[in-house]
Amino acid sequence: MIDAGSEQSTANVHDQEVNPWEVKGDADGKIDYEKLQKKFGCSRLGKELVERIEKLTGRPAHPLLRRGMFYAHRDLEQLLDAYEKGEPFYLYTGRGPSSEALHLGHLIPFMFTKWLQDAFNVPLVIQVTDDEKRLWRMNLTADQIYELGKENIKDIIACGFDPNKTFIFSDFDYMGGRFYRNIVEIQRLVTVSTRKAIFGFSFDSNIGQISFPAVQAAPCFPDSFPHMFGMRKAIRCLIPCAIDQDPYFRMTRDVAPKLGYFKPALIESSFFPALQGESGKMSASLPNSAIFVTDTDKQIKTKINKHAFSGGGKSEAEQRANGANLDVDVAWKYLRFFCEDDKKLKQIGEDYSSGKLLTGEVKAILIEILQQIVTKHQKERVKVSPEIVKQFTDVREMLDLFPGLKVTS
Amino acid sequence: MIDAGSEQSTANVHDQEVNPWEVKGDADGKIDYEKLQKKFGCSRLGKELVERIEKLTGRPAHPLLRRGMFYAHRDLEQLLDAYEKGEPFYLYTGRGPSSEALHLGHLIPFMFTKWLQDAFNVPLVIQVTDDEKRLWRMNLTADQIYELGKENIKDIIACGFDPNKTFIFSDFDYMGGRFYRNIVEIQRLVTVSTRKAIFGFSFDSNIGQISFPAVQAAPCFPDSFPHMFGMRKAIRCLIPCAIDQDPYFRMTRDVAPKLGYFKPALIESSFFPALQGESGKMSASLPNSAIFVTDTDKQIKTKINKHAFSGGGKSEAEQRANGANLDVDVAWKYLRFFCEDDKKLKQIGEDYSSGKLLTGEVKAILIEILQQIVTKHQKERVKVSPEIVKQFTDVREMLDLFPGLKVTS
Repeated sequence: MIDAGSEQSTANVHDQEVNPWEVKGDADGKIDYEKLQKKFGCSRLGKELVERIEKLTGRPAHPLLRRGMFYAHRDLEQLLDAYEKGEPFYLYTGRGPSSEALHLGHLIPFMFTKWLQDAFNVPLVIQVTDDEKRLWRMNLTADQIYELGKENIKDIIACGFDPNKTFIFSDFDYMGGRFYRNIVEIQRLVTVSTRKAIFGFSFDSNIGQISFPAVQAAPCFPDSFPHMFGMRKAIRCLIPCAIDQDPYFRMTRDVAPKLGYFKPALIESSFFPALQGESGKMSASLPNSAIFVTDTDKQIKTKINKHAFSGGGKSEAEQRANGANLDVDVAWKYLRFFCEDDKKLKQIGEDYSSGKLLTGEVKAILIEILQQIVTKHQKERVKVSPEIVKQFTDVREMLDLFPGLKVTS
Repeated sequence: MIDAGSEQSTANVHDQEVNPWEVKGDADGKIDYEKLQKKFGCSRLGKELVERIEKLTGRPAHPLLRRGMFYAHRDLEQLLDAYEKGEPFYLYTGRGPSSEALHLGHLIPFMFTKWLQDAFNVPLVIQVTDDEKRLWRMNLTADQIYELGKENIKDIIACGFDPNKTFIFSDFDYMGGRFYRNIVEIQRLVTVSTRKAIFGFSFDSNIGQISFPAVQAAPCFPDSFPHMFGMRKAIRCLIPCAIDQDPYFRMTRDVAPKLGYFKPALIESSFFPALQGESGKMSASLPNSAIFVTDTDKQIKTKINKHAFSGGGKSEAEQRANGANLDVDVAWKYLRFFCEDDKKLKQIGEDYSSGKLLTGEVKAILIEILQQIVTKHQKERVKVSPEIVKQFTDVREMLDLFPGLKVTS
């Protein structure tokens, strides 16, 4: 019952519609990412910036970065300039808990965020927006959503974040104190007209939906976390997220300087496609639409073989003759996300598009990689005890988060 | 910078405009209370109900009740029926902290609420809406408003509430937990259209103003206070307030049954007039518009003598001949609020309207009464130590609030 469909979105590019509550491609189901980035007004994340990150962190860029899945940004140069000068920053990302078990698309921002945390050695806050889900989803109770959030937190922890530098919170738990005061500060600077221009507006929306964007904005301000950053306002924030979340942070960037904060920087990804291809929708109610972190090896194998849309020839002969259309081939797209070996990936691409490799062979490679990823995730997930959850979610003093960094406040 | 002026209000009766953020009389500055009550859809609080309260509590009704200042209600019969059967209820009232020192008009609901608490021997929650003030007042910082709230709390405590049965909280402090979850539950059931129909709507409002009504609604639900009422939903709530607050609770009453709660009952007062008369506005920026709880005896005397609008004759001869017009005489109006002795009051009314008493003589009687009230308040106010404040504001276990009452949950 997400009502964004009845809203007018400024991100409407020809027929595509992208906002935090709805992602809809054009007539063919395709998302034009370049148009989207331009319409939103973010910058393209090009080769130079990727190389700069590699230089600054002394590591090769994450595959999702060097292959252009994280393809847009805001103020990333400024953030890197500041980092180079020894100024601190922290990472902020989030998750809206839903009825769905996490699928691979959900894991991607966390995998990338973990890489950023390791590479830059910085603190991280992860917001679980159970309140948002309650405001937009009419078929789950607050208790159900809250419990789903708790389960999602275990999957997030299983991605390998540093407990000494990471704070994971649910809005239902953490609402209050300085966080709530910052939310009110943001709300009073955003008119309904502005809300309408950025997110759309409908008289059928509930009143919580109208004001919610401030809740997602507040973690961009470091003093929302006094146990981590004290009352310091001069700490930059970098947000890795999918590009549909851009409107939230466009709004936040308008407000930030008025409240004495840096504008948050962003590093934004395209979407991870459904098994049925870009026009499909990954959903827990469509188990064959996605690979879930709870899937067995056998389920992964069956799903990829039966449901991953193929860009290969209709017959072996046709594939040998013409090769595959990589632009629409889901196995290939998934390999680009998850095959870490650049050389191997390049070879697969060449052989598959030339017809040397058949769809079944490419799928077999993918199946093995996905089985490894999911098995590893499941192994890490069972280790996440209640004690470990507490290490990430307790509001505890973490005031020494910037060793060796100059805090200018 | 309260922007309600730009909103359309459903409470617009001829020219008068009454909503939680603005009270404006008709062309002559007069409020037609009967029309207001009918327009809002509340019931008239008549003699029968007052007598029933006297019978149930075994005490004479408070002057504000028996003289009709608390003149409207919602569901008071049902609440008294339930009380008679031994079912519990609690009281809820509030205060929006502002730059103004409290004046007598601010004290009235608290004086009356104290009487209700004593008479019915029931728990009480008092909400200090610092967040609301921050959303509507543009000239005070959140810190300033929060501190004003702390000062206001001392004045409220000085009214004599029972610390064992009373919880006073600021939204900035108490936001979170079950209270926040109830706020979200309410927000999701109120569309912007409904918000517009009840409170008006403007695209120039900030987004926090749109959703705020849920914050004032949530204390009507007992499980917003798990430390007082556990998770019990079947506890009735009675709200003493001025009639301009009715829209908040009309909204709450629509939502309550959908969430499994009783509709809150209301007992609603007319407004306390400014010294300049009904069309005047009491305001801290107009020190001669009101008697403040910080005024000295001398200030009270000067203000009443110089500024209280007189309905008496222009000269002594005229007053002796025609008597005073009590309908517009402010000293008389104030005596009706604060002179507890019915016989004395009646005599003053007869003698003043007949011309036997002069304005100066009536004002002298009023001055003495007000000086007594303010002196007593100041004496109680200085006794309110930080420890006493803690007794009222700490979130502490108060689960045994209904001795001898059957809790049906």
